[in-house]
Amino acid sequence: MSEGNSSVLEELAQLLGENGIRQQPDDYLPEVVLKPETTEQVSGILKICSAAGQPLIPIGGKTGLVSGHVRTGDELGLSMERMNAIEEIDVTNRTMTVQAGCILQVAAEAAQEKDLLLPLDLGARGTATVGGNVSTNAGGNMVIRYGMTRDMVLGLEVVLADGTIINSLNKMLKNNTGYDIKQWFIGAEGTLGVVTRVVLRLRPHPRSQNIAFVAVDSFTNVQGLLHHLDSRAGGSLSAFEVLWPEFYDYITREESTHRPPLPHGSPYYVLVETQGSDESGDAEKFETILEEAMEAGLVSDAVLTRSQSERNALWEIRDDVLAFFNLGFFVPFDVSVTLDKMEDFVRDIRAAMKQHEDPICVIFGHLGDCNLHVFLGSRNVETFDSDAVEELCYSTVERYQGSISAEHGIGIAKREKLACSRSPEEIALMATMKKTLDPGNILNPNKLLPEAFT
Amino acid sequence: MSEGNSSVLEELAQLLGENGIRQQPDDYLPEVVLKPETTEQVSGILKICSAAGQPLIPIGGKTGLVSGHVRTGDELGLSMERMNAIEEIDVTNRTMTVQAGCILQVAAEAAQEKDLLLPLDLGARGTATVGGNVSTNAGGNMVIRYGMTRDMVLGLEVVLADGTIINSLNKMLKNNTGYDIKQWFIGAEGTLGVVTRVVLRLRPHPRSQNIAFVAVDSFTNVQGLLHHLDSRAGGSLSAFEVLWPEFYDYITREESTHRPPLPHGSPYYVLVETQGSDESGDAEKFETILEEAMEAGLVSDAVLTRSQSERNALWEIRDDVLAFFNLGFFVPFDVSVTLDKMEDFVRDIRAAMKQHEDPICVIFGHLGDCNLHVFLGSRNVETFDSDAVEELCYSTVERYQGSISAEHGIGIAKREKLACSRSPEEIALMATMKKTLDPGNILNPNKLLPEAFT
Repeated sequence: MSEGNSSVLEELAQLLGENGIRQQPDDYLPEVVLKPETTEQVSGILKICSAAGQPLIPIGGKTGLVSGHVRTGDELGLSMERMNAIEEIDVTNRTMTVQAGCILQVAAEAAQEKDLLLPLDLGARGTATVGGNVSTNAGGNMVIRYGMTRDMVLGLEVVLADGTIINSLNKMLKNNTGYDIKQWFIGAEGTLGVVTRVVLRLRPHPRSQNIAFVAVDSFTNVQGLLHHLDSRAGGSLSAFEVLWPEFYDYITREESTHRPPLPHGSPYYVLVETQGSDESGDAEKFETILEEAMEAGLVSDAVLTRSQSERNALWEIRDDVLAFFNLGFFVPFDVSVTLDKMEDFVRDIRAAMKQHEDPICVIFGHLGDCNLHVFLGSRNVETFDSDAVEELCYSTVERYQGSISAEHGIGIAKREKLACSRSPEEIALMATMKKTLDPGNILNPNKLLPEAFT
Repeated sequence: MSEGNSSVLEELAQLLGENGIRQQPDDYLPEVVLKPETTEQVSGILKICSAAGQPLIPIGGKTGLVSGHVRTGDELGLSMERMNAIEEIDVTNRTMTVQAGCILQVAAEAAQEKDLLLPLDLGARGTATVGGNVSTNAGGNMVIRYGMTRDMVLGLEVVLADGTIINSLNKMLKNNTGYDIKQWFIGAEGTLGVVTRVVLRLRPHPRSQNIAFVAVDSFTNVQGLLHHLDSRAGGSLSAFEVLWPEFYDYITREESTHRPPLPHGSPYYVLVETQGSDESGDAEKFETILEEAMEAGLVSDAVLTRSQSERNALWEIRDDVLAFFNLGFFVPFDVSVTLDKMEDFVRDIRAAMKQHEDPICVIFGHLGDCNLHVFLGSRNVETFDSDAVEELCYSTVERYQGSISAEHGIGIAKREKLACSRSPEEIALMATMKKTLDPGNILNPNKLLPEAFT
């Protein structure tokens, strides 16, 4: 805080009380963090900051991967940590209303206690907040079946930059009464308003989980397998996770704790899962569908598991992303390309990385969603060049008309790369929206939009 | 057209050529209709009209039910009828790219030829255009399983009021690169921009259809049946259409062409349908699920059909809405209320209608989507008072915090009722958006927003 703004802090202290403000030095995060307990306090904060031109960063669980919660100057933090209540689980309408600071896992477990599913799951579940998930339009493990966070938000309460409270806490699946305002704020990374409450759509909790791990010998067959499962599983396909051999071979190497479920040497491995409503019937159907895939030549080898521990072991192979951090130095990318271009995209990235000394080039992803995670770097810190791998990855994404951010958002990390995936007209239109809803540029400034557009 | 604007017409004629403009007198529709063939022409039209302050009405199939395509002054029509091409069906990515003027049924049939499903279906399918469906966020018969039009739009091309072409023709399921611009235009009824091209997500075509018609003896059991089917059908529930007895008894009365599949006298009838991927297995599972419902006392009587002609006969009962137009004079409403409030909502509407002479009070709906269609009026033109039934319906919706438009939109018909379902802050925010994107108020003016906000 500059000294000239100390009167702003006094006003905020009066509004929030002594437990409502935390101050601590920090190199990256806001040093002064406001902790409102009510939407009205959020509104009050924004009125004060708006009048003073004091910028703010809305803060959830701080698990974002694009530095959306990191300060760029003297922004205050606006933490939703004390607004973390589950206000209602409505079993009749299968909805849940939570405050923005509610931890995702807490919300998901509360739904499960009512035998309902909040179909949003991601690695940071124990720390990430629902408000943060909404503001970043989080993806995760069940997108292929249930969509992104956007697809499960029925209603929102949001506070605008000038303190206006917009209550759009709709619970109905169909509501065509004018512009669907909530869509403007989902995925806007806190730059257009502060999400304070959310109505989420819940689903029946699945009763069966069926998993197989398969080897596939060509990308054409990977596509064919996805289409086959999508067609034959009748809406119950819940995961289609593809591992390229650089991922699989390393994670299941001899020294690893993971036993390889299938021999090394295949060009593609796929973890497939269905979730259904009929424990015995679904298992049988899953087997039939896989047999069909083998007969059609789509799958060259397969392991089907029955016990929960074996299922967990398969998911642990896919989820052990942290193991790669022992391998060396790399940038973890989160990109999308359409299925028809994916094989060429991977080929180009691999070919370019082969030019590097000691390359790291690990690729895996939620293929059904077009989403690839790509780790590019070097086993040797001296030959690691993060700028070079960024340039390689994003220019290749641009060439294949892909997305530089499938599910992580833009934040600070990707703002200057936005033009790889969006046209100047689109970015200019985004900037128009930003100027309209936040004319003083106080809501998470210097994020999402390239500097030239702010 | 006022004479002062004749130079605008000259400019437009030069841009579009002689086949690009149609003129004919009309009491309701625009008398001068522009028929561009390319997005660039749409852009040119908007530049000319923007400069001249000449208002326009984007026109699709003119099947909307809220007069969104009706003129309020000297607006020009901007018909998409010549931009009706299916540009691509991408079977690898399961997407389809169409021009806005493509007829819904044409698009759906083209998808079906590739064994894919465009999961949007509604009565006006043979005339409505995809651009119109997008601009009104159309609902229809498969929302319970696949969502509204919004949920199947992956990408859009839209032309802004000033002629700027925004190309957001994304094909990827995951794309978190900044604000999701397309959401702003879906459901905006042509008031924020002109949709010119659309990328739609396609699904595998279902291989089985299972239908039952059941009688249910209480609303609690209607809810219980919906939850049971939703949980047990594992994502394949594709219809849950509830008919109140005033609907069922009339449509299947002795003089009608429809044979009653179940005896009269039940308080609720429900048409349930699943669509799956396994012809024999799905039929067996459907029977099991229905048996469970009967054993649990959720269903008092049921008819299960096996032949396609019997299935069609059941759907024809639900779809024969036109039959009521012989009954008398009524206003057809399209509203939503949450499930927990629906029984009371219907009770109040019925009680109020009992006070009328010769009342018509017919209720049916897509219950799984919270959507009720309600016909309120009189068998006698002399006692029919459309203002009174509007007042009754909308004030009751407001009391139960429902939506005055589930799937039809606002247009002219409901603009002055918008405040029944939206707060002043929401409406003011919508007006801000309108002023930002269409500062000259040339795009479908006098629609959607109440007059006080324009």
